[in-house]
Amino acid sequence: MTKIKIAYIGGGSKQWARTFMTDLALSSDLGGEIGLYDIDLPMAYLNKEIGERINQNSSTKSRFNYVVYEKLNDVLKNADFVIISILPATFKEMASDVHTPEKYGIYQSVGDTAGPGGILRAMRTVPIYEEFARSIKEICPDAWVINFTNPMSICVKTLYDVFPGIKAFGCCHEVFHAQEFLCLVLRETRGIDIHRKDIYTDASGINHFTWITEARYKDYDLLALIPEFMEKYYEEGYYEYFDRFQFKYDCFAYGNKVKMNLYSRYKALAAAGDRHLVEFVNPNWYLKNPQMVKDWKFNLTTVDFRIKQQEERIAESKLLASGKKAIELVPSGEEATDLLKAILGHQTIISNINLPNTGQMPDLPMGSIVETNCIFTNNQVKPIVAKPLPKAVLNMVYRANNNIETCYLGIKNRDLDVIFASFMNQALCSNLTLDDGLKLFKEMISNTRKYLDAYFPNLDEYLNK
Amino acid sequence: MTKIKIAYIGGGSKQWARTFMTDLALSSDLGGEIGLYDIDLPMAYLNKEIGERINQNSSTKSRFNYVVYEKLNDVLKNADFVIISILPATFKEMASDVHTPEKYGIYQSVGDTAGPGGILRAMRTVPIYEEFARSIKEICPDAWVINFTNPMSICVKTLYDVFPGIKAFGCCHEVFHAQEFLCLVLRETRGIDIHRKDIYTDASGINHFTWITEARYKDYDLLALIPEFMEKYYEEGYYEYFDRFQFKYDCFAYGNKVKMNLYSRYKALAAAGDRHLVEFVNPNWYLKNPQMVKDWKFNLTTVDFRIKQQEERIAESKLLASGKKAIELVPSGEEATDLLKAILGHQTIISNINLPNTGQMPDLPMGSIVETNCIFTNNQVKPIVAKPLPKAVLNMVYRANNNIETCYLGIKNRDLDVIFASFMNQALCSNLTLDDGLKLFKEMISNTRKYLDAYFPNLDEYLNK
Amino acid sequence: MTKIKIAYIGGGSKQWARTFMTDLALSSDLGGEIGLYDIDLPMAYLNKEIGERINQNSSTKSRFNYVVYEKLNDVLKNADFVIISILPATFKEMASDVHTPEKYGIYQSVGDTAGPGGILRAMRTVPIYEEFARSIKEICPDAWVINFTNPMSICVKTLYDVFPGIKAFGCCHEVFHAQEFLCLVLRETRGIDIHRKDIYTDASGINHFTWITEARYKDYDLLALIPEFMEKYYEEGYYEYFDRFQFKYDCFAYGNKVKMNLYSRYKALAAAGDRHLVEFVNPNWYLKNPQMVKDWKFNLTTVDFRIKQQEERIAESKLLASGKKAIELVPSGEEATDLLKAILGHQTIISNINLPNTGQMPDLPMGSIVETNCIFTNNQVKPIVAKPLPKAVLNMVYRANNNIETCYLGIKNRDLDVIFASFMNQALCSNLTLDDGLKLFKEMISNTRKYLDAYFPNLDEYLNK
Amino acid sequence: MTKIKIAYIGGGSKQWARTFMTDLALSSDLGGEIGLYDIDLPMAYLNKEIGERINQNSSTKSRFNYVVYEKLNDVLKNADFVIISILPATFKEMASDVHTPEKYGIYQSVGDTAGPGGILRAMRTVPIYEEFARSIKEICPDAWVINFTNPMSICVKTLYDVFPGIKAFGCCHEVFHAQEFLCLVLRETRGIDIHRKDIYTDASGINHFTWITEARYKDYDLLALIPEFMEKYYEEGYYEYFDRFQFKYDCFAYGNKVKMNLYSRYKALAAAGDRHLVEFVNPNWYLKNPQMVKDWKFNLTTVDFRIKQQEERIAESKLLASGKKAIELVPSGEEATDLLKAILGHQTIISNINLPNTGQMPDLPMGSIVETNCIFTNNQVKPIVAKPLPKAVLNMVYRANNNIETCYLGIKNRDLDVIFASFMNQALCSNLTLDDGLKLFKEMISNTRKYLDAYFPNLDEYLNK
Repeated sequence: MTKIKIAYIGGGSKQWARTFMTDLALSSDLGGEIGLYDIDLPMAYLNKEIGERINQNSSTKSRFNYVVYEKLNDVLKNADFVIISILPATFKEMASDVHTPEKYGIYQSVGDTAGPGGILRAMRTVPIYEEFARSIKEICPDAWVINFTNPMSICVKTLYDVFPGIKAFGCCHEVFHAQEFLCLVLRETRGIDIHRKDIYTDASGINHFTWITEARYKDYDLLALIPEFMEKYYEEGYYEYFDRFQFKYDCFAYGNKVKMNLYSRYKALAAAGDRHLVEFVNPNWYLKNPQMVKDWKFNLTTVDFRIKQQEERIAESKLLASGKKAIELVPSGEEATDLLKAILGHQTIISNINLPNTGQMPDLPMGSIVETNCIFTNNQVKPIVAKPLPKAVLNMVYRANNNIETCYLGIKNRDLDVIFASFMNQALCSNLTLDDGLKLFKEMISNTRKYLDAYFPNLDEYLNK
Repeated sequence: MTKIKIAYIGGGSKQWARTFMTDLALSSDLGGEIGLYDIDLPMAYLNKEIGERINQNSSTKSRFNYVVYEKLNDVLKNADFVIISILPATFKEMASDVHTPEKYGIYQSVGDTAGPGGILRAMRTVPIYEEFARSIKEICPDAWVINFTNPMSICVKTLYDVFPGIKAFGCCHEVFHAQEFLCLVLRETRGIDIHRKDIYTDASGINHFTWITEARYKDYDLLALIPEFMEKYYEEGYYEYFDRFQFKYDCFAYGNKVKMNLYSRYKALAAAGDRHLVEFVNPNWYLKNPQMVKDWKFNLTTVDFRIKQQEERIAESKLLASGKKAIELVPSGEEATDLLKAILGHQTIISNINLPNTGQMPDLPMGSIVETNCIFTNNQVKPIVAKPLPKAVLNMVYRANNNIETCYLGIKNRDLDVIFASFMNQALCSNLTLDDGLKLFKEMISNTRKYLDAYFPNLDEYLNK
Repeated sequence: MTKIKIAYIGGGSKQWARTFMTDLALSSDLGGEIGLYDIDLPMAYLNKEIGERINQNSSTKSRFNYVVYEKLNDVLKNADFVIISILPATFKEMASDVHTPEKYGIYQSVGDTAGPGGILRAMRTVPIYEEFARSIKEICPDAWVINFTNPMSICVKTLYDVFPGIKAFGCCHEVFHAQEFLCLVLRETRGIDIHRKDIYTDASGINHFTWITEARYKDYDLLALIPEFMEKYYEEGYYEYFDRFQFKYDCFAYGNKVKMNLYSRYKALAAAGDRHLVEFVNPNWYLKNPQMVKDWKFNLTTVDFRIKQQEERIAESKLLASGKKAIELVPSGEEATDLLKAILGHQTIISNINLPNTGQMPDLPMGSIVETNCIFTNNQVKPIVAKPLPKAVLNMVYRANNNIETCYLGIKNRDLDVIFASFMNQALCSNLTLDDGLKLFKEMISNTRKYLDAYFPNLDEYLNK
Repeated sequence: MTKIKIAYIGGGSKQWARTFMTDLALSSDLGGEIGLYDIDLPMAYLNKEIGERINQNSSTKSRFNYVVYEKLNDVLKNADFVIISILPATFKEMASDVHTPEKYGIYQSVGDTAGPGGILRAMRTVPIYEEFARSIKEICPDAWVINFTNPMSICVKTLYDVFPGIKAFGCCHEVFHAQEFLCLVLRETRGIDIHRKDIYTDASGINHFTWITEARYKDYDLLALIPEFMEKYYEEGYYEYFDRFQFKYDCFAYGNKVKMNLYSRYKALAAAGDRHLVEFVNPNWYLKNPQMVKDWKFNLTTVDFRIKQQEERIAESKLLASGKKAIELVPSGEEATDLLKAILGHQTIISNINLPNTGQMPDLPMGSIVETNCIFTNNQVKPIVAKPLPKAVLNMVYRANNNIETCYLGIKNRDLDVIFASFMNQALCSNLTLDDGLKLFKEMISNTRKYLDAYFPNLDEYLNK
């Protein structure tokens, strides 16, 4: 058994923490401590109680001590792994991120990565990550740091820019969905049933806008099967899990119609949920208005919905913590635990993660945060060189990546003009006039000032000019 | 006196040929032959007659033999220089390029470089340039080739891709305007009167979307003076020649208001006429509709206007050729003749031109056609490494450049899907839905099929699918 | 069972063919045909007979049809895999390669990759590979091509330069030895016994001059253990198999003393046999004369020895073919069969191979043939981005790589001056004066003209000038 | 008249200061102050007196105040230009640099840039430059800094590494000699007499190992004339000034025979004095022993000679300062004053200088200090993209450049092992065994410890291990 300390920043998380604790519990050969740190202390304690319930479960293979820490530096002390999964600010701010732009005709299906919502969220998040990076550098410079927070790329960028020696990467499950989709393509066209881990896909790009340029299962070129699949399913859509029409009632589901349309145009498969993809391309293609969203078989996620979902999760957490509801230990399908075990030397696996570009995507600038396949093994994480993207796809990816880098530069230097340059060049802002753009930007800043004033001392001046 | 042969492809040109012949006539120490080749043979003969009138003029310092050739390979034989300045197809096709998109809400102020017009024009032009490149390779591989035809970048790209050993570059005077503008900024803010050749500007980007990142006259940092200049002139505009309100009645003039607005946002000076610049950025910024165009103090150039202008020029050519109108020999302000003399070793000069990237803009891919300063001297043309563009500007330039490369790839491989990918990613096409985009593309193809069928054998299939 | 056709060029091979046939026989789930092609036809027939004996063996899991082909294009027809393992020319030429330089004070421990021997061998080999590449392009462009011939890098370079779409890579087992060495380091310092496949090493460089920059087994940083290991074993040496003093009587064995010395100087582990390593560095370090060779605990391999070894192998082949000697089926430890199965989708493995640089070593030019880890999976081979080499090591690797590229350019253009520039810049030629260098080069050409005249028509002129 | 303050670090210089003061005096339109700073204060005062004599001279066009400063920060205050031209340590240390290696068979014709002498000199110089860079950053960050000290590349590297925003470049006149040589080639083969400023040469590489890849005078390709020139002059040699046999009695002169030999091998012209060139290539080619040096028509410069020369210069300085000897004001042919005037906006000129690579030599790493042509104009210095070097030449240049970078890294981190790695990879150290190499390195350190101990605190430990 390998004994480790995992520091969990955002350890009061209502969902991810539980998923992660469950997956860890089901992994044999691990043990030690899970340190929970959260500015919402009661939620961290709740997760500790849930963790202890898990320990009592008979299916549990690995048992951890759950310890709540009130200070960042304390949770980091002696950490072998640092997990970061936070919600910067509250749903009130997220409501502004997602819904304020609607007044200006901008619809966001997610609103936490690209588009105006992504920019504002980055403005709140990057300064917090600057502090994380400084603390990790000081307290646990050798720890592996796994980020789950969005906006993913700019969070990882901040960690590396502040502490270049950090061993950090960002994890996201969106590519998995595209792999599942490819499995279904094989099943529906050739009657062969496989699991996404049976295929190798060459995925590259940036988080939530990753593209699969090659996908093979034995002799089958999976991408080449898509046109045949589309003949049957393009019109009506096909969600990759359970009910293929799930997008009709589940706002997180989608019919993969956007993905199929992009494939038919670019001959590469965009590898994230359609809800994410549409936020990186021209809004007049898929996201012009709610009717168009419906036609393309995906949904806009409202923050009201998220609030309701959150309340349910908290209620459930309380039931689980109190023992009133039994904990069901089932593997989540997420790979974080596998990656962690691979880093500990228990196995070698390949997974797509977000890392600074050191050669894996030579068409993007070195140091940009890119998402590609990587090998995880004995204390090492190595990116695999990706097949070049088609030129037209590269253009869209380059633009999105440069927007992130520009936005980061602006936040780093607390320069609102530079942030605004990135804001106006967001694909989702394409329909804005200059006047409306500035007005919207200022309105979104005003709505969320509570979480910005500490970092941007000149907001008044900017808003009034 | 250096004796040379200049092969002029497009030698029936109604304006450029005359400008060029005049400038040559005023340059001492040159002589030899100017070979005129044009598919419009009568116009080539007209220019020959004008040339001979110039020879008779008493101010003429250099006299050339004017010879009309009916075959491309004949005009190229023994050529030391090849000038290419053609109009692919007729104004009928240009009318489709410029005005068909208006039905879809796309206004183009020029319509020959970027935007839907640029794509269609490229589709007609690239195949012709493939032939030029092959002939030059065969007949006069050591000649210097100077291109003036638009779309500039893709023409130069074609020449180098077909014949990598070619000694070609593309010339454009747009940056000169921005330099003149900077001279006026100095005059209006400091009362100092200088000529554009007195200042050094670091310009880089791609043709018609070049940016000045540094500009100095002695101790003066000219870019830093712009805000002061803007206080006086931003509102009303300032055209750089003669009457500063010339944009009110001259459709080629503009108030530099777009340029000033871009400067205030990016801290770099976009170095082309505002009419060109607006075609590379979001159309909702400056080009959403005719009223917005007016507000930003520039004009849309109609093809009707061009036709009328052309007719006047032909009439004038005839008068000049026949001697009914006397030729006035004044230097044009263009630099082509100076560059030619520098290549011949008569002088060393610096000018901005379009060349494949060999290091002058390391943030763009090697081999892309970029416009930067270059040194012209004894049979050599060497690019100067440009100061990096601001990140947000680089993003827009990268996008425009990749669109050109994608478009070129599509035309080279006669692959309409790839061309359409570039079409839809044109900044000017931002407001199009996917359906409208495809409809517009097909309509523009149909309108100009006469000049496309020879090169794209599958047009019917594409249009009907 | 997957049915495949393997085309074996050099199928009369006395050793590699047998190893490969044995490994294949022991791999379940494979079948089909092994086509043997060799200019030494009787040896190909002998291998066919051995193959058929293997088929009769009871331990055999996979049975193949063995077919001898007399024409290159015939063996390539329908091939799924092409194996190339040839000896260009004969041992007579190799004797010149290896021993002629001794007259000039140059000792070569191998003489087939770097140094004067490597250059001459390349001159005979590259033109043959040009033909291979052309035939593969024509006959079986989709086949996977695995090269085993030395000089490795220049052979792979030729294949890709002539046919850029080729799916080729080069395999070499030298890195395995360094991995075994690291296992021994762990055993001798920590008492832990592991197999080389249990550790992950980050290896990069060029063939026979690859470097391990990171090596971990669970918590152990294996490179960091080397100094402790050296305290015990540096003086006397340590061969990694069986008898640690094997280098005293086996001319292929070595005491790893060179490797340890290089480690102490550069903090990275050179990952090839010491016999190979010494040919890439200054000869005055390890290879000045036979005594120094002895002091560093490795041996010079004479061609007489190789001839004798070859004769024994042929004799053994005949015994095996005739059934007079029973074939013992034991796995070789080579990875070729594993790679082949991974490509067929039976497994995913990581191994170090030689491929054009597409980002895996961004400090070397793109397109250079580099050796790094790669992933093998479903019909795909993807390089892994390597950790940067220490600057001083990079310098030596860059030099060796540029020498290969220069040599290739010279051979490609049949330009002896360029080849000679590479010859004189070989590390092993450091002690030569210019006069002696040219004399030696010419002498080595003269000795091997029989195999050069067909490709270099101007040899007389060159030798006489 | 432009009033400027020039800070001269090393202002007690016995030769350069005088040259520079003279050239300035002959440049009209300049004035202000020349601040002299030197650790040898009396020599600074002597130069001040000479300066004042120059001011009295009737040919003087520009008069400056000469002020001696005793503190570095004082001389830098308000400086517009900083000139750095120092001798680190004394001739005693230089004697060790140049002559200690002779005991080990290493002859150095200069000994201040490459080879063992260059390394030791760098070890003494870099720490001093670290201080210069810090002071400039603090006191006069906007000043232009011109370096003349050797080893040139590593001095400029230090300035930029410590203060990335510095406006520094390094000037060297060696390329001028090669240009003069080309003028002579033209004269001797075509009878045409020109000045080096009449031709354009594309020079690139690193300081003292720069290569001319293209050189034209009008229609003449000057490089192509070299073989014809060599027919006449290769055997006997040709020094480019005055007496072509000057190398027979002047130890700084040389017969350009090395240069011609290199040209015949690489088809590019090495553009520095032969004395410098030979230190960058295999010593067995041109520098194996004194006889070989003689055969190649150049000379070894002894430090005794330099001491004698120095004494004469001091004596002369005293005569000039006292007025006993009249100052003859003749332009030196050096370009520093021209560059300075170009920066002040008086003219635009092109000259070769040493700058960090930002694209001018894309085959070398970005940030390396490379010497190429640059444009000097209004407060701007811009590198020109160089033609790629022939591959075999690039290899030698890359090696030399990496050695500098490795050496710099070692000195920066005070890591003697890394410095030694660069030491052993110096071309001039090719003939050393490992034992002799280490012995020599330690001996050279011991000899010059007086100037190293302050920077390398662990010297004892290193020398004794």
